[in-house]
Amino acid sequence: MDLLEMFNAMPFSDLLGIEMCEIGDGRAVGTLELSERHSSRPGRLIAHGGVAYALADTVGGAAAISVSETVTPTIDMRIDYLAPATGGTLRAEGEVIRIGNTVATVDVIVTDDETTIATARGTYKSSGGEGESAWRGESNA
Amino acid sequence: MDLLEMFNAMPFSDLLGIEMCEIGDGRAVGTLELSERHSSRPGRLIAHGGVAYALADTVGGAAAISVSETVTPTIDMRIDYLAPATGGTLRAEGEVIRIGNTVATVDVIVTDDETTIATARGTYKSSGGEGESAWRGESNA
Amino acid sequence: MDLLEMFNAMPFSDLLGIEMCEIGDGRAVGTLELSERHSSRPGRLIAHGGVAYALADTVGGAAAISVSETVTPTIDMRIDYLAPATGGTLRAEGEVIRIGNTVATVDVIVTDDETTIATARGTYKSSGGEGESAWRGESNA
Amino acid sequence: MDLLEMFNAMPFSDLLGIEMCEIGDGRAVGTLELSERHSSRPGRLIAHGGVAYALADTVGGAAAISVSETVTPTIDMRIDYLAPATGGTLRAEGEVIRIGNTVATVDVIVTDDETTIATARGTYKSSGGEGESAWRGESNA
Repeated sequence: MDLLEMFNAMPFSDLLGIEMCEIGDGRAVGTLELSERHSSRPGRLIAHGGVAYALADTVGGAAAISVSETVTPTIDMRIDYLAPATGGTLRAEGEVIRIGNTVATVDVIVTDDETTIATARGTYKSSGGEGESAWRGESNA
Repeated sequence: MDLLEMFNAMPFSDLLGIEMCEIGDGRAVGTLELSERHSSRPGRLIAHGGVAYALADTVGGAAAISVSETVTPTIDMRIDYLAPATGGTLRAEGEVIRIGNTVATVDVIVTDDETTIATARGTYKSSGGEGESAWRGESNA
Repeated sequence: MDLLEMFNAMPFSDLLGIEMCEIGDGRAVGTLELSERHSSRPGRLIAHGGVAYALADTVGGAAAISVSETVTPTIDMRIDYLAPATGGTLRAEGEVIRIGNTVATVDVIVTDDETTIATARGTYKSSGGEGESAWRGESNA
Repeated sequence: MDLLEMFNAMPFSDLLGIEMCEIGDGRAVGTLELSERHSSRPGRLIAHGGVAYALADTVGGAAAISVSETVTPTIDMRIDYLAPATGGTLRAEGEVIRIGNTVATVDVIVTDDETTIATARGTYKSSGGEGESAWRGESNA
């Protein structure tokens, strides 16, 4: 299974309608067609902040995995909202801006058909995954 | 309609299964019962990072609105993941740590039945909402 | 007194050697010549993380003030370190990516003569300053 | 040389007047006596945002190093300003909230004699330092 298939098989992405389009060379692109289920208001479409975030986090992880070739859980992410998303198709583009031996730093920009909706910056684990969770064998303080 | 009803009527919260339990005095609590639809893996339950984020953002906004008494869109939020969420019920508790005349700063802690899953800190708009979006009448640079 | 003079008269900038070069139209540039006093190690020059941050925060505030025309205190800022700064001149360039009626979002990139040292993103207050502190008349929760 | 001596020998801490008081068991405390050199205004004392940040980053790194026992460079940090610092002594207390095999997450609270001035949350490298910089042998994308 290649990376695109892997990302498009995620149940949560399916629930939200996230579709990954490109993954490779430290870069990834994904889209999400907005509909009323994404709204934070009954009867109108103003996307919940979690929609752009979920898209950004997914695309950021895909960009990271394309260069680290291992599972890359998100360590932390900041998102800044620049404009409300009220319809159409969201598109997120992620790019690895630094890949180290333990973490990767990724920038993501989320746009709709016209405007920049949000920008996000995240730190992803780039090694030590060993199996299904990068947290395996780690303990919380 | 009171705040709890308003938050529990959000279509996106309904899609994810977010249930708000308490909102008041700069504090809010919400829960989310994890199931396979929240997973980032087919066939097993390891919650996508967007799940804890969406819960944290919702609870943070509820805490902010309880003191600002106006619509409080998220300006920015950072989330740090401390442990994977693999089942049971997520519970997020948000608390306003500063309320100013234009923005509120909110801390959120997300736990499952045993562990701290994530912590988040966000800046929310606390005035100037004027209707359905706080961004109304604003322009992007 | 114009903006450049105002920023270059800051005592803390003077202590660190920050020199503002350009401020205008939502954009600002500042530099800092590294020397041993900026180091986190005795006897060698590896700049303390606070050096790139102080430069980034100053330049970000200058970019914000150039469009808001009022005092613009930092509400929050995130900085990501991409490479160690070990000598030469740091240069930071800030750009307002969103200006609203209450807050501005600013991106800053810090480089040395060769590499990107750090990137930062901050939220600044863009109104309500009323005098010397934007926090005046506000209370903490 | 023990950790307290190591941190108190940092040239940049000396420049700013940071004094580390306690380091151990995932916790650290440091102080900084404010004076006019820390100000962002000539003739009055309103501390530059870089002052609380530099103190928070130093204390956070000290808390991280106390559990990882290796050099722990900052990967990223977010700071939220809650009140202006206008005099007296700043005190920062840092606590590791998660230590993993590659990164540590640290919370820091900065107070003055009366109020919470700022809160910060950072991700520090907790392994792979190999000598004087954790970035050694790593390449930027």
